Amino acid sequence: MTKTNAGRFFEDYRLGEVIDHAVPRTLSGGERALYHALYPARGALYSSDAFAADCGLPAAPLDDLIAFHTVFGKTVPDVSLNAVANLGYAEGRWLAPVWPGDTLRAQSEVIGLKQNSNGKSGVVWVRTRGLNQHGTEVLSYVRWVMVRRRAPGEAPQAVIPDLASVVPPETLVVPDGLDFTGYDFGLAGEPHRLSDYSVGEIIDHVDGVTVEEAEHMLATRLWQNTAKVHFDATQRDDGKRLIYGGHLISLARALSFNGLANAQLIVALNAGAHANPCFSGDTVRAWSEVLATAETKAPGVGAVRLRLVATKGEAGALRGADGKYLSDVLLDLDFWALMPV
Amino acid sequence: MTKTNAGRFFEDYRLGEVIDHAVPRTLSGGERALYHALYPARGALYSSDAFAADCGLPAAPLDDLIAFHTVFGKTVPDVSLNAVANLGYAEGRWLAPVWPGDTLRAQSEVIGLKQNSNGKSGVVWVRTRGLNQHGTEVLSYVRWVMVRRRAPGEAPQAVIPDLASVVPPETLVVPDGLDFTGYDFGLAGEPHRLSDYSVGEIIDHVDGVTVEEAEHMLATRLWQNTAKVHFDATQRDDGKRLIYGGHLISLARALSFNGLANAQLIVALNAGAHANPCFSGDTVRAWSEVLATAETKAPGVGAVRLRLVATKGEAGALRGADGKYLSDVLLDLDFWALMPV
Amino acid sequence: MTKTNAGRFFEDYRLGEVIDHAVPRTLSGGERALYHALYPARGALYSSDAFAADCGLPAAPLDDLIAFHTVFGKTVPDVSLNAVANLGYAEGRWLAPVWPGDTLRAQSEVIGLKQNSNGKSGVVWVRTRGLNQHGTEVLSYVRWVMVRRRAPGEAPQAVIPDLASVVPPETLVVPDGLDFTGYDFGLAGEPHRLSDYSVGEIIDHVDGVTVEEAEHMLATRLWQNTAKVHFDATQRDDGKRLIYGGHLISLARALSFNGLANAQLIVALNAGAHANPCFSGDTVRAWSEVLATAETKAPGVGAVRLRLVATKGEAGALRGADGKYLSDVLLDLDFWALMPV
Repeated sequence: MTKTNAGRFFEDYRLGEVIDHAVPRTLSGGERALYHALYPARGALYSSDAFAADCGLPAAPLDDLIAFHTVFGKTVPDVSLNAVANLGYAEGRWLAPVWPGDTLRAQSEVIGLKQNSNGKSGVVWVRTRGLNQHGTEVLSYVRWVMVRRRAPGEAPQAVIPDLASVVPPETLVVPDGLDFTGYDFGLAGEPHRLSDYSVGEIIDHVDGVTVEEAEHMLATRLWQNTAKVHFDATQRDDGKRLIYGGHLISLARALSFNGLANAQLIVALNAGAHANPCFSGDTVRAWSEVLATAETKAPGVGAVRLRLVATKGEAGALRGADGKYLSDVLLDLDFWALMPV
Repeated sequence: MTKTNAGRFFEDYRLGEVIDHAVPRTLSGGERALYHALYPARGALYSSDAFAADCGLPAAPLDDLIAFHTVFGKTVPDVSLNAVANLGYAEGRWLAPVWPGDTLRAQSEVIGLKQNSNGKSGVVWVRTRGLNQHGTEVLSYVRWVMVRRRAPGEAPQAVIPDLASVVPPETLVVPDGLDFTGYDFGLAGEPHRLSDYSVGEIIDHVDGVTVEEAEHMLATRLWQNTAKVHFDATQRDDGKRLIYGGHLISLARALSFNGLANAQLIVALNAGAHANPCFSGDTVRAWSEVLATAETKAPGVGAVRLRLVATKGEAGALRGADGKYLSDVLLDLDFWALMPV
Repeated sequence: MTKTNAGRFFEDYRLGEVIDHAVPRTLSGGERALYHALYPARGALYSSDAFAADCGLPAAPLDDLIAFHTVFGKTVPDVSLNAVANLGYAEGRWLAPVWPGDTLRAQSEVIGLKQNSNGKSGVVWVRTRGLNQHGTEVLSYVRWVMVRRRAPGEAPQAVIPDLASVVPPETLVVPDGLDFTGYDFGLAGEPHRLSDYSVGEIIDHVDGVTVEEAEHMLATRLWQNTAKVHFDATQRDDGKRLIYGGHLISLARALSFNGLANAQLIVALNAGAHANPCFSGDTVRAWSEVLATAETKAPGVGAVRLRLVATKGEAGALRGADGKYLSDVLLDLDFWALMPV
């Protein structure tokens, strides 16, 4: 009947189904410039062709999160238009750099389904792959969302995928040619190398950013994520627009430069939770916890596993006595990044 | 005396006069990225070099409305600085794609003049042409505006141009090489081809965007349109800034993706009215009416004539019993777009 | 102990010390597009490759202030994180154009130190140089800031550098190849050449822009200036964010197009004062005073020395009877620009 996309409901997903998401996207220096305007991003490897060349790369790649948000945005019309909640991420891996001029498309496979006992919704697990114009996989991750049913009905057989709680460090993919043996800590902004960080160490990234409606809408549209809850103030009684969780990921990651300037490339996403909603006017701060360190086979390149928390509250505070996230915690992200040893 | 531009008044225009507008502009992937950040634009042909190549083009052109706004912006200091109202558009034709790296300039010929009976203002008709760095005409349209007189005085002989109410579909210019025979509806985002649309069909584009001051100012400046009413909150008693009508055109066009994802290129502007002013805080929605369909000579390429309405109200509602636009209607645009048959 | 950068305090600076600032930056057409979105910039030489080519340049350079802000932003973490006030600029010289694709880095030499009599702070003078990827100096300027001491202590020997009050016009560097003999005043936007301007002439640039939080934060981040006072609304009791002084420089410069469209390139910064703070909601206007004119050796190219004032008040009003800046004056900038003779 209607020409418009109402989104998929829980009963529309079939286990093993592969969805080719629409609207491939060519990225350029324009998206990089906007990324720098939207986030206080200062990672030298993404900022400077010259710095990247000194690290063995042909030029500065686009920020890993530009790749992530672009791919994620493609999946929204097929995966999360009727989502009640974005429940988690796992097994995220960055497999090849994305360069200005590359065109990304996205594909998702339904790898798990479980109807809720209320019969009104269910959880859908998808493994999403981002592909460039050569068909090379640049990114892969699992996410699971709670999706409404269109109408009550019989539950499909429950299949819950077996997901790794952490991407094993020996499987991390280091970009071809990356070499940190001549790494310039001065130009990068901080003197700390991997061996300077201790497991369990908490880093307060100090700075805060008070977020504005215009900014998060610009950012969310940039990734062609047009879910109305981020743009339409009439969707909620209080007239607020829910800030896209990916905006918090990039904001916290950029703030983490202050203390983690040398955590240069994100290569794996182990887990992630959008703990509480964020709205315009909130002042967002970030802190990190060092969870683990590892070696890689690339010269001078190590890996650090970090918990990155975006919060309106204090550094180091995450959960209450009840084990639940504190109300001012916005994001809890667990990832691997590459750092000079 | 003064060095600054006070703009032209009605008595400054001469029939047949050709005005070369100032400040040519080179466009790049930066303008494309900003367009995606400012509007929820998802047309695959403008988003992806790969998709455009599969449609026979050398790369993704810049959005037709980037070309339109850039050319329009150039004309503002000479045509509409003292305009009381932007009255209409006609005979708009897109004649050649604009590519990243192209430089656009604009030229207008005065083709009509008619003083109002009050002697204080008059209507000026101009035919504006956009030219690229090779001197190729990329765009042409007529608009007419009501302009104040500097001082009362004798009226020039009234000349009202004879304008087509619709650009005849057999004169539509299809970009060289465009071929929709292998069109990928999956990547484009919707399955509907030209034959799926019926004349008279109304499409509610569902989504809404609540507009912010910072966004419309960024957009309007991007086209180097610096008319103060869009930027200076002291110009009105209520402290509001009038949103540039072109911002509404792009916003509504982008929203129309949901239901018209395959209306890929705008090739003609038949008519247009900025029915009511729009201000920050308004939540803008869009709906379309299919007015006509037509063939073209390009393989697999048809044309659809659409009425695109931006509104704060209900889909399908346009005029009251008095024949006037309803107060929540912001824009009524009539154009031809190319669509796979 | 801590991994984060607390910034330098007065006692951390040594006379003659050279600081290599972190995070080199590659600029592209993306930064140019954003500059046009953030400021009402219309200078034809920066807007159009074709216009620049007609003036003897290989392409349109990036705006001189893009170069300035990029270099300035690099210095913030080392120079002004603990600054109480940005006191002045001198001997600024643009030495080579910056092109899309260039990578800029920055270096500062401490050329003066003077502890205040209160023992709690002192003035630091630095000469900052911006270098491109070839090691070519593209920009050089002196600025001095008042910086807090970490703890009270003995004053270093006071050294106050001997700075020129004006960059001598015979030392201005004109970009290679620049030739204004065929300058197209029509395309540039105004007919006024250097000989049309008189020393002492005041130009009211007419237009005003009401500034928004989202805009100045986008702009300030774009230059990787992340000083928290511009971003964190909890830093002040009134919840306002201080607008980066550089934002005012670019805003006033862009507004000055209306009356100074042919003051094409900034080649020297003689002096500058951020007279009063600016906040979101302020409506900023600009006026200029012609301070001097000069010849250059390049064909058709002259130089004009301008005072550019950003203000919330009236054109021409600068200081009160007490000799102090009026409270609505935001910026007082003294620079040389190149203009067709």
